[in-house]
Amino acid sequence: MEKFKGVISLAKYDLLVEKVKHQIQNEIWNVGDKLPSLRKQVEISSMSLMTVLHAYQILESQGWIVSHARSGYFVAPKIQYANSEHNSSDAAIHTTENVDINNLIFDVLQASRTPNIIDFGSVYPDPKLYPRLQVNRALMAAASTMPTSSALDNLPPGNKDLRQIISKRYAAQGMNVHPDEIVITAGALEALNLSLQAVTQPGDWVVVESPTFYGSLQSLQRLNLRALSVRAHPRNGIDLDSLEKALQSHSVKACWLMTNHQNPLGCTLSNEKKGRLIELLAEYNVYLIEDDVYSELYFGSKKPLPAKAFDQQGMTMHCSSFSKTLVAGFRIGWVAAGKMALPIQKLQLMSTLSASAPIQLALAKYLSTRNYEKHLRQMRRILEQRKFTTWQILSTYLPSSVNVNYSEGGYFLWVELPKHMSSIDLYHQALKENISISPGKMFSASEKFDHCFRINSSFECLASEEKAIKKLAELIQNSINKGA
Amino acid sequence: MEKFKGVISLAKYDLLVEKVKHQIQNEIWNVGDKLPSLRKQVEISSMSLMTVLHAYQILESQGWIVSHARSGYFVAPKIQYANSEHNSSDAAIHTTENVDINNLIFDVLQASRTPNIIDFGSVYPDPKLYPRLQVNRALMAAASTMPTSSALDNLPPGNKDLRQIISKRYAAQGMNVHPDEIVITAGALEALNLSLQAVTQPGDWVVVESPTFYGSLQSLQRLNLRALSVRAHPRNGIDLDSLEKALQSHSVKACWLMTNHQNPLGCTLSNEKKGRLIELLAEYNVYLIEDDVYSELYFGSKKPLPAKAFDQQGMTMHCSSFSKTLVAGFRIGWVAAGKMALPIQKLQLMSTLSASAPIQLALAKYLSTRNYEKHLRQMRRILEQRKFTTWQILSTYLPSSVNVNYSEGGYFLWVELPKHMSSIDLYHQALKENISISPGKMFSASEKFDHCFRINSSFECLASEEKAIKKLAELIQNSINKGA
Repeated sequence: MEKFKGVISLAKYDLLVEKVKHQIQNEIWNVGDKLPSLRKQVEISSMSLMTVLHAYQILESQGWIVSHARSGYFVAPKIQYANSEHNSSDAAIHTTENVDINNLIFDVLQASRTPNIIDFGSVYPDPKLYPRLQVNRALMAAASTMPTSSALDNLPPGNKDLRQIISKRYAAQGMNVHPDEIVITAGALEALNLSLQAVTQPGDWVVVESPTFYGSLQSLQRLNLRALSVRAHPRNGIDLDSLEKALQSHSVKACWLMTNHQNPLGCTLSNEKKGRLIELLAEYNVYLIEDDVYSELYFGSKKPLPAKAFDQQGMTMHCSSFSKTLVAGFRIGWVAAGKMALPIQKLQLMSTLSASAPIQLALAKYLSTRNYEKHLRQMRRILEQRKFTTWQILSTYLPSSVNVNYSEGGYFLWVELPKHMSSIDLYHQALKENISISPGKMFSASEKFDHCFRINSSFECLASEEKAIKKLAELIQNSINKGA
Repeated sequence: MEKFKGVISLAKYDLLVEKVKHQIQNEIWNVGDKLPSLRKQVEISSMSLMTVLHAYQILESQGWIVSHARSGYFVAPKIQYANSEHNSSDAAIHTTENVDINNLIFDVLQASRTPNIIDFGSVYPDPKLYPRLQVNRALMAAASTMPTSSALDNLPPGNKDLRQIISKRYAAQGMNVHPDEIVITAGALEALNLSLQAVTQPGDWVVVESPTFYGSLQSLQRLNLRALSVRAHPRNGIDLDSLEKALQSHSVKACWLMTNHQNPLGCTLSNEKKGRLIELLAEYNVYLIEDDVYSELYFGSKKPLPAKAFDQQGMTMHCSSFSKTLVAGFRIGWVAAGKMALPIQKLQLMSTLSASAPIQLALAKYLSTRNYEKHLRQMRRILEQRKFTTWQILSTYLPSSVNVNYSEGGYFLWVELPKHMSSIDLYHQALKENISISPGKMFSASEKFDHCFRINSSFECLASEEKAIKKLAELIQNSINKGA
């Protein structure tokens, strides 16, 4: 798509790009090393600040370096998937007739409840990062002013003020999403489930990513749907060529994707790719269920757009929540449902009736202040620092045959062990040491990714966390030694 | 079953029973008339107080009279189902392959949101009857003391304190329900839905009552299940002989029933019948999904037992909530799930994750006080008064060919029009007058009961309500005149 191409002449900064690449390839700069600052590089290269900045941005976009707010640029972890499932000779598409993933996920979620566990397996950010007092104050205010009619006022599609606030947040990204298109749900998970049910019948084929957020697999299992898993790359996300093949070979009803800061990989689709994705799905008349719960947790200069921004047909159901950014456990999410808004409301009336009224009111109250933006800015900065630190410590201690995928946004690191290893074994060994991780199999409909696991990087890296990483490294090294 | 039979000699009070029956049949006492008080009857009949009391209780149990707290005994509405579907020559069992009920229900629920409507169609009790300030105070207290770990603490099976309180409430009825068997859900509707899903696969047969709470039909539709509707009587509830035939003729997986103060009929199964129901279902290895959201709203001397009390096999999933007794819109319910507790937790993790954490905490706080019992006593008294008053006013104004079924408990009156009439027509006519009712078709998988409708009797009968009843009577009379 022409409009996404660079408009600046290539010649000048390209020289610098090639030079830095060469330096990294020749190990002049090693993984995690800090690169010369922009100012310093201007001096060294005698190029303009704009040129240097542009070169660094290109290196970043290609995955060679990572920027870290207020600290500068660092050499990125090597992207070497030689022993990885992501680029292997394995089929890029997997079919699963009967999804059955639930027991493992249940066990891992229960493990998070162990007291004093080092919870690298958690799906939530460090709860200390939530503005607990502010949110509780909003809840108290909602409780003290709640009208008797609140049960009716908050029936589907949900609290009007809250839907209007969400609509305005879309507008701030240049998107036109009417409040009537928005349905408030009991968390994003209900939004996703209702969306999926609104457009499928038992036995239908649904495309998911491989690896994918396990919630999608659970939904497919619950609704008796069949999974078409399409390969996703830790940096670039879903492989659109494979997706097209999947659409050609199967009668697909819906596609469930995370377009921004994907769980578990962390990858974000480029705008170009999001546009192509929407075109492709429109061509095959396939609904998009877009799970976008992490997009507020970006590290760059602005919030990534959802794929829905490129959809003119109303075929995208964009689902999100406040659980990862503001408060866990309130269970409030939403779907901007396009033409499926009414069917989704009806399905909600049939299953849970509505999201909790006082909680809807409390969030509407909190979000009507400027506190949310202020909080988000702070949370993003801390998450970025912690993710980088966790990645550095992991890179320091883990054996060199282990690959830690860093991505800019969210709070997940995707770790690839040597292919013969099992993260389920590691998970059980680590649990005995009071450390949790999320084993890779959780994220696959076909028991793939057993050699991978997901690390939550949102917790402050104190002595106990560093000790836990050392212990993980030790367990991995022991296992490598046994396998050798 | 022998143990349920009376143990007192029949002769003495039987005379009085027969005498009063005779007086009613001969219209010495008419519907709604006040009978002589117990004391007065002792004088008249020269029988002992115990004998008179027992005679009145028998008359009440046979549906001839109704007792009304602090006001005495009144002649009950005539139980004449000559023109009714309940005892007609129609088949007692109906099969429905593809349940599709949703649009009508959606329209009726939306109508309740019309400002200033006289909301006889409402499913909720008058919100003024809820202890709003006390509950809000509990919510504020929960908000101000909520630990950061609350999202995890309140994951399925849900808040431990709340489960323990619910377990103790079962114990107060002599039932042994362990807290680990209880799963906290987003309202009773989620509890019922998860229970149904835990024991069925798409295409399975499920028994429901005819008429039934429309939520059961919506669940069947959502889960692609097939309905076996078994006739229920406005006074005695589901017909167990027909149920047995249904179980013989179809491979039934589950049976969804309301055993106490059934919606829409208001009927309560006797303990004997509950025991037989459990035996029958056990014989055919059928799960019971027991919807019991109205049992706290009894008018008698003690809370009716659920059928689960008779179940030794753990085949009953007993579902309830606080939405009809304490607060609407909080969306907290539970299921005492027997051996299905773990599968239900897993299904919940897959669909909504958990009920809202602060709301669980708030209810645990409120219920740990004595306020709930105090509130319930008051609410029961008011509901009993209002139901009786509403019934009296309806009986006064409605044409004599209309039958208003009174039941002791809850806040629904089931009205039967002459059979040629359509309550859907009445519903639309009434809406134009800003009056809502719940048309009978909402409660049927096979479009039966169009000549019936449900009236909510929980609102105070002020001039506006009386005027609305007059208007309904006028609309009905017009329609009868046209049909004649």
